Amino acid sequence: MEIERKFLVAEDPDLSAAEPVAVEQGYVTQPGDTVSVRLRRKGDKLLLTVKSGQGLVREEYEAPIERAAFDTLWPATEGRRVEKTRWTSTLPGGETFEYDVFEGAHAPLKLVEVEFGNRVAAEAFTPPGWFGREVTGARAYSNEVLALEGLPGDDIA
Amino acid sequence: MEIERKFLVAEDPDLSAAEPVAVEQGYVTQPGDTVSVRLRRKGDKLLLTVKSGQGLVREEYEAPIERAAFDTLWPATEGRRVEKTRWTSTLPGGETFEYDVFEGAHAPLKLVEVEFGNRVAAEAFTPPGWFGREVTGARAYSNEVLALEGLPGDDIA
Repeated sequence: MEIERKFLVAEDPDLSAAEPVAVEQGYVTQPGDTVSVRLRRKGDKLLLTVKSGQGLVREEYEAPIERAAFDTLWPATEGRRVEKTRWTSTLPGGETFEYDVFEGAHAPLKLVEVEFGNRVAAEAFTPPGWFGREVTGARAYSNEVLALEGLPGDDIA
Repeated sequence: MEIERKFLVAEDPDLSAAEPVAVEQGYVTQPGDTVSVRLRRKGDKLLLTVKSGQGLVREEYEAPIERAAFDTLWPATEGRRVEKTRWTSTLPGGETFEYDVFEGAHAPLKLVEVEFGNRVAAEAFTPPGWFGREVTGARAYSNEVLALEGLPGDDIA
């Protein structure tokens, strides 16, 4: 089970120790469907992911697929895609963060996510100064909703 | 574009010239979703298929996937599967038919489908005597609805 908190970004962080990877992902499904089916290219890796359920009891099935299969299925995500650069690094407290810089139609959106081992750690977390407003669980900031509906109307910094 | 007519089966046909293949398919999505995402094992072939749209403007994306990916994703179809033996052969008029004998929870359902090159040929078709009631377009006899809801309550012969 994933326990994550997600934030907007107030200031660009120090990324000198971070690793960037280009991520392109598209959704075959739409947000109202019973499952989410996603194609993702992350660097050289091509993945197909199915997420079912909602809230705390989400199940996830993820498999690498070959280039030919990816290329055949990718057109089925037309109009429901995001492109971003993901920078992964560590906060001073030891937590791993993923900092996503969106491109194309979603620029200049930036989001940062921190994953926790349990709920207590998630609740005890104090965001660093460069984090902006918390958007954990906010529908408009899920990648699937961003892909379909574009940037939310509210202030994204 | 596929133009097909689908029928129940009144009498077992002569299958001496037909080729059987075991088919197992499961749906990741449910019938109300915006797309249909299906995993299918047909003999040795493993396929992932996405169908979008409705009625006449359906689009289909189909890709072979590897055994490991199939095995990872197959559990996501739990509770939404059908198993059948498909016999493919030719009618006296030259049309190809696919005769599906369902197994497991869907036995003793049998369906036969004939595909046509155009609408005129489809409308001109006279079903042979072994064909039963026509169920073209009947929601209850789509494989996806059968997989989720099981056998329809009506007379299936």
